[in-house]
Order: sequence, then structure tokens, then C-alpha cells
Amino acid sequence: RLTFSSPDAPGMPAPSDRTAWDFLPDGWATGTDATPDSARTFEQADGSPRWVAVPDGFEPVTQLESARLGIVTPQMTRVAEREPHLSAEQVRDEVAAGRMVIPANTRHLEYNLDPMAIGRASLTKINANMGASPVSSGTDEEVEKLQWAEKWGADTVMDLSTGGDLDACREAIIRASHVPIGTVPIYSMIIGKKLEDLNIEIILDTLRHQAEQGVDYMTVHAGVRRAHIDLVKDRLIGIVSRGGSLLAKWMLVHQAENPMYEHWEAICDVLHDRDVTFSIGDGLRPGGLADATDAAQLAELYTLGELTERAWRKGVQVMIEGPGHVPFDQIEYNAKIQRRLCHGAPFYVLGPLVTDIFPGYDHITSCIGATSMAYHGASMLCYVTPKEHLGLPKKDDVKQGCVAYKIAAHAADVALGIPGTRDRDDDLTRARAALNWEKHFELSFDPDLARAYHDEDLDVDT
Amino acid sequence: RLTFSSPDAPGMPAPSDRTAWDFLPDGWATGTDATPDSARTFEQADGSPRWVAVPDGFEPVTQLESARLGIVTPQMTRVAEREPHLSAEQVRDEVAAGRMVIPANTRHLEYNLDPMAIGRASLTKINANMGASPVSSGTDEEVEKLQWAEKWGADTVMDLSTGGDLDACREAIIRASHVPIGTVPIYSMIIGKKLEDLNIEIILDTLRHQAEQGVDYMTVHAGVRRAHIDLVKDRLIGIVSRGGSLLAKWMLVHQAENPMYEHWEAICDVLHDRDVTFSIGDGLRPGGLADATDAAQLAELYTLGELTERAWRKGVQVMIEGPGHVPFDQIEYNAKIQRRLCHGAPFYVLGPLVTDIFPGYDHITSCIGATSMAYHGASMLCYVTPKEHLGLPKKDDVKQGCVAYKIAAHAADVALGIPGTRDRDDDLTRARAALNWEKHFELSFDPDLARAYHDEDLDVDT
Repeated sequence: RLTFSSPDAPGMPAPSDRTAWDFLPDGWATGTDATPDSARTFEQADGSPRWVAVPDGFEPVTQLESARLGIVTPQMTRVAEREPHLSAEQVRDEVAAGRMVIPANTRHLEYNLDPMAIGRASLTKINANMGASPVSSGTDEEVEKLQWAEKWGADTVMDLSTGGDLDACREAIIRASHVPIGTVPIYSMIIGKKLEDLNIEIILDTLRHQAEQGVDYMTVHAGVRRAHIDLVKDRLIGIVSRGGSLLAKWMLVHQAENPMYEHWEAICDVLHDRDVTFSIGDGLRPGGLADATDAAQLAELYTLGELTERAWRKGVQVMIEGPGHVPFDQIEYNAKIQRRLCHGAPFYVLGPLVTDIFPGYDHITSCIGATSMAYHGASMLCYVTPKEHLGLPKKDDVKQGCVAYKIAAHAADVALGIPGTRDRDDDLTRARAALNWEKHFELSFDPDLARAYHDEDLDVDT
Repeated sequence: RLTFSSPDAPGMPAPSDRTAWDFLPDGWATGTDATPDSARTFEQADGSPRWVAVPDGFEPVTQLESARLGIVTPQMTRVAEREPHLSAEQVRDEVAAGRMVIPANTRHLEYNLDPMAIGRASLTKINANMGASPVSSGTDEEVEKLQWAEKWGADTVMDLSTGGDLDACREAIIRASHVPIGTVPIYSMIIGKKLEDLNIEIILDTLRHQAEQGVDYMTVHAGVRRAHIDLVKDRLIGIVSRGGSLLAKWMLVHQAENPMYEHWEAICDVLHDRDVTFSIGDGLRPGGLADATDAAQLAELYTLGELTERAWRKGVQVMIEGPGHVPFDQIEYNAKIQRRLCHGAPFYVLGPLVTDIFPGYDHITSCIGATSMAYHGASMLCYVTPKEHLGLPKKDDVKQGCVAYKIAAHAADVALGIPGTRDRDDDLTRARAALNWEKHFELSFDPDLARAYHDEDLDVDT
């Protein structure tokens, strides 16, 4: 197992003993023993053999399908180039196991996407959210924010626009981006419509449209089930996920199950055709420390495990979204129960904040939780800006959020002992020991700021 | 045992089975069984009896001595008033065990000191450093910084002045402060003198002078021993503690043992007479991730344990200073080996930074480490400002450092489950759920900032 992991504290759930290999599509078979006729065989990165039998005429579309056939795609090669501690074959094997995703819409690959991977065998990634609202900013401004986020190290960007010309904005962001772009398609499904009128046709049409545009990963809140709604009634702050609350309302109005859950296989087919990666949403994530790790959150997580299995049977790549607001002592459990229930599918978390009483500083309150969450198993950290809970992030807020999360991601990678990750820290320490200020600045994440702070006291003996 | 603690991960050192009760002065005896004639008896907070026999005519001076006699001092009562989860008797028992200190110089108590406690049974505390340098700021400015730090929640303040009129500045800060004041007296011992001329008379004179001024706790680097110097030669950045490197140089010049170690009992006597608390310095603390938890650091920590025992035998209160720069995965070990070797004496740590490559953001890199260190056992966190490694903190840097460390301290207290600590978080969550913005701001740590951020987007639907 290539996964980097913290040692388990007493009482933590053990890893799942299953992987995506245990959830193959109908008509598939695999094994590591004697190869049956008609099966392909390949050597895994650890030197062991594996055979795979697939239906006649099968052609792989997704990275997961290629990996299952033993194929090293150009995207896997590129990932290994960007992360030298991994070989392309290791990347392939992690993708095949479902523990790594390469969110790379086949359309976006025709533009400027530089393929990257998310999974606990690779470096911790960070995501920056942006998006126009009905009363703020337009397409040009969002593209500028995208480029700014890329400059400050965002590994992926989510376009969460809820206003303006959503389609044009999404298209512009996809064409301009070098990083994978994620969306929450339910925001588009209800623009100018009544929520009650949402149905599976609208859902599939919207997903298909965004898949054709080139979106690399999509948040789909299929895990919020009708039976879960009762579980939130004693919460301090109910349902804070917008997607989660929209679907809960839909279920209450229609007295019916979540259509995304019901029609999950049809949704999988749509995402499959452009190799869109699922980011299965946590619609019941806690909105405050008091609601963390409660029955609603865990019931949904259990469903997310089921949806993971079903998506893997459809050949679709999966990551899982996580909280939110979690006391520091509950973070390891949150990471490790996800690892178990979702069989190692990459965990993509929002912070979490470890206290609620510092609005205006939530990039800090949350990057503390994010460091711990990554150390204990999360693969991607969705940034939180200083404006969280208060307003819409401006350019400098985006930077502050990115920097705080690069700190969290890097600190976790060093702690996990990923080869080579501490080299730059050590070089900077050497520059410090030598009082080599120029080198000190060069090795800094934000050289201009370091230089400016230093120069403020230029006449001062520091 | 009242101490709040994280569960021990596999392989962590167990707590010491000894306390300050095992290191009584000559002529003292104690027990919890049948009381001998001439011994005093008192009921401990857990209801169990204890007897103590002391030499004839003994009068307690320090909080530790009073606690050992079963006396609840006015300062203990005040601490319990400020921390309602503790009774005054529990405070007394923690002080008697050496697991809690009340840094309250008897002189400072004549001015405006509001007594507080440091120990893992109480809330996590934060310290703010300040001090004039030869080329910057004067007494008025330092007093203003002190008041600013108090406003932003500093529980103690260290005056690290190395220039200007040190004596007048220290005096002014002590008179103006409501919080305990700490110093690093070696800075004063060498001003205008040659380091080589330092001797035990100068050391004792300086300590006595500052004790008479009212300093509540003093960093004394008695743990850096001659035999340790060889252990730093393979480090990337050698000795970064100023006190540590001065004493190492002294030992090399004189080919002699650290005079502070040699004359520890004489030093204890000086601190004892005004009930100055030791903050035994970690002169060999690592200056970069690469040097963390190495032989030099651990050898010194072992000596700090010995010095703790010797100080307790002199009736002096003790806390222990800790690193500095520590990878996230080594933090729990650092906290728990200190707990073992120093028998539960409060641990007072500087951050630690969990990565070295973000100069300009070290209030963030270090408050991540500080949260984890407090959760795993540290009692007080010395703040780091954005200017760390680059320059001298200005007023806003002091604020940013304080806020980041209030976040760390509070997040750890919530995680440790200290009764009542999450109430404000929950109230704020309720205000959020009710969309009660005024209450939301009121409950925020920095209401003005939260309101300002919110008002930036007043016309925007958030």
C-alpha cells in the first residue's frame, strides 16, 4: 500500500480491506493468480502480476478504466513527472485501486489543462473557490481571479457562480485554466426555475451540458437521503450546504427520495462519457462544532460509501467531500471513518474550522484543521478565505486563503514523510544559518512579502 | 489526575509517576496515610487527606510552598474565579503537584497584577513578546504595546528588550501590566560588558535586581551543558536561542560547565524570595524542522527534568520552555516526552512552526503547531508574529500574533473538552442559524473586523 498515513490513534477505524478492484462493472473479472484465457495480464508497480477480463470490444474512456486495463495514460505519465516520488505505474495502480483520481475532462484536455492527481499517495492538493454572484463581478473578473489563484498555488479551482452569465463564465474559466475546474451543477439547475420542478431530465441535461463544456469534476449531493432529514432536527444549525438544503427541500415537497440517489447510475453514465470525476457532496456537513460527527453526517457518509461503490462499477472516478466545522480532537476520526467507509477514495475537505468564534480569521481557524485532516488522510483541502461567513472574497482574500492552505498542505506532506517534501525547508534553514538573505527570500513561498517585511527594518539590527 | 490530555498515540511516553510531592526540601515529609505527630493535615480537593511535616518555624513564601502546606492563597482563589471549571482547592493541589504555576512576584502583586495560572488543568494561555532594541522604540512605546497585547488577549508578556534604558522600560512595564511579566535576564547581564566576564556574582545580582523590580517569571538557560555542545555540530542551524548560544560561547571560552547549572541552588534561592517562577529555557531548541527532536534537544530536556526536581526541592515554581520548529508528526512526542521527563511541570512552547518556507506568515505556520502542542500537553503558547525571522513586530503584527494564538489556545481547549469552553462557539453557531448578525458580531473575537468585512458587501446577497 503506497498511501501515506498517520499512525492510527487507539480506537480509530482500520482502513477498508476493499478497493475499486472489488467493485468492477458487470462482465469484468480480475485476479492475481493463474490467468484465464482471453484475459489481459500486466505487471503492477510492485512487480506482482494482475489479469483483467473485460467484455468483448470494450474501449476505455476514463482514467479508471485505463488503469484497470493496465494502461499508463499520458495523463498518468504527466502526474509522475510532476510528482517525482511516484512512477507512472504507481499512479496507474493508485487510480485502479480508486485511491487516486486524475480529474481531466477529455474536452478540457483539448485546451490547456495540465493533468494532476488527487490521492493520499501524492502531495496534498488545495482548491480555491470562486464565482460570480447575482450582484457581483463578471466573467473577466472571474478569469482574473482564476489566474490569481493559480499564481498562489491553487491545484484546482471551483466555479461556484450563482449569477451573471453562468454558461459564458464557466466556458471562459475552462478555456483559460491550467488546473482542473470543478462545479456544483445544482446551482445551474435551479436558476430561473422553481426548485419543485427539478427532475431527473433537468439534472441529466445540466450534467451533460457541463460535461461537454469540459468541467473536470462535479459536486453531486446524492448522499442526502430522505431518511436522513429527521437526523438534523436537533442540530444547532441544520443543513448549511446549499446543495444539501435544496435537495432536502425537494424531498420534503415531493415526499420522495433524492433523485440523484435514485438515478445514480444514469448520472454515472453522463459523467463517464467525458471522464468527469465525482466529488460526491456532503450535503449534511456540520455548520458548527456542535453538529460535527453527528448521526446525520455519519449516515450520509455511509451512503457516500455506497455511491462510491456504484460509481466504481460504472468506471467513474470518485472523490468524497467532507466537513466543514470539526473540533480538533475529532479530526482523525473523521478522516479514518471516511477511509474505511469509502474504501480509500480521496477525501476532499472544507477546512475544517476548529473554532467558530473567529469570523474574519477563518482562513487560520480552518487551516489548522486542514493540516490535521491532511495528515490523517485527506487528499485535497478546499480553502477558506478570511471572508468566510461574512462576504465574498476579493483578490487579496483569495491570496490569503491560498497561502494558508499551501501552508497546511505542505506541513502535512512533510509530516507524512513524502520523499523530497522537506528539501526546500532544509535549504531555507541553511540559508538562514548562513545569513544569506537573498537565498532566504528566494526560497520563501512569498519572496516579495518576505523581502518587504525585512526591508521595513533595514536600518534595524535584527 | 485533573490534567486535561489527548489520548496517547501508540508509542508515546507515559506520564511520569512522580510529581513535585516527590521532590520536597530537606527536612520535609508528606504522606496520605496515618499522620505523624507534629504534622499538619489537610483535605485535598478530591476528598483524600494529606499530611505535611516541615521544619520548625517555616513560613511559606511561594505559591508552591503555600500549596504544600494546604493553604489556599488569595491568588489561587482569584485563579478559580477566573476559571470557573476549577475550585480554589483544585488550583492549590495542582500547584502543589508542580503541574500548575501562578507567576506572581510578591512585588508585582503590590501593583496591578491580576493573578492567573498556567497548567494543563487550566485554560491554555498565550504569551506575547515585546521589547525595545538598540535602534527602535522606547519605554512609552513598549508600554503601549503591552496594553495593546493585553487588549488582544495576551495572558502574559515577555519584555525582551536589548536596548534603550532597559531598567526603566522593565519598571514601567511591570507597573503598567495586569498580566505576569517575564524576562530573559541574560540579555541584561551582558549589556555593556564582555560575555567572557560573566560570572555567578553578575548572574545572581541581575536576577536579584529583576526579582526586586517585580518580574514574575524568568527564562534561565541552565539546561545547556558543556557536554551538549558537541551534539549540535551536525545541525543545519546550530544554536538559535540567544541565551543558549551566549552560554555555549562562555563554556567554550572558559572550558567550564554552565555557571547557571552549577549554581542552580543559589539561583533558586534568589527567585524564591520574591516567588519568581522559573521558565527554564531551552537553549538548544531546534531552529529548523531538520534539527527537531534531535540528540541535543533531548539531552537538554533531560537536564531540564533534573533542574525541575532541584527547583522543586527549593520550593520554587517551574515551567519548561519548548520548541520552536517541529514537523507536525513529531509534536505529540515532544509534548509527551516533556510531560514524562519534567514530571508534569507546565510546558511553555514557542509555536512551533510546522514548515520553514513561509516567512511572513509564521504566525500561521506556528499556530498550527501550537494548537497541536497545546492539545497534546503544552500549557502556554508563546506567540509568533508575521515578522518572525524578518524584523521587529509593529503594533498590527502584535495583534495578528495574539489573534492567531488565541485561536490555537481556544481550539485546543475545546478539543480537550475543558468544561464551558465551547459555549461561545455554540452561541455563535445559534446566532448564525438565526441570521442574527448583531449577535454574530458580538460573539466574535474581533467584532469590529467581522462587522467591517460584512459591511464591505452590504449591498451583496451573502
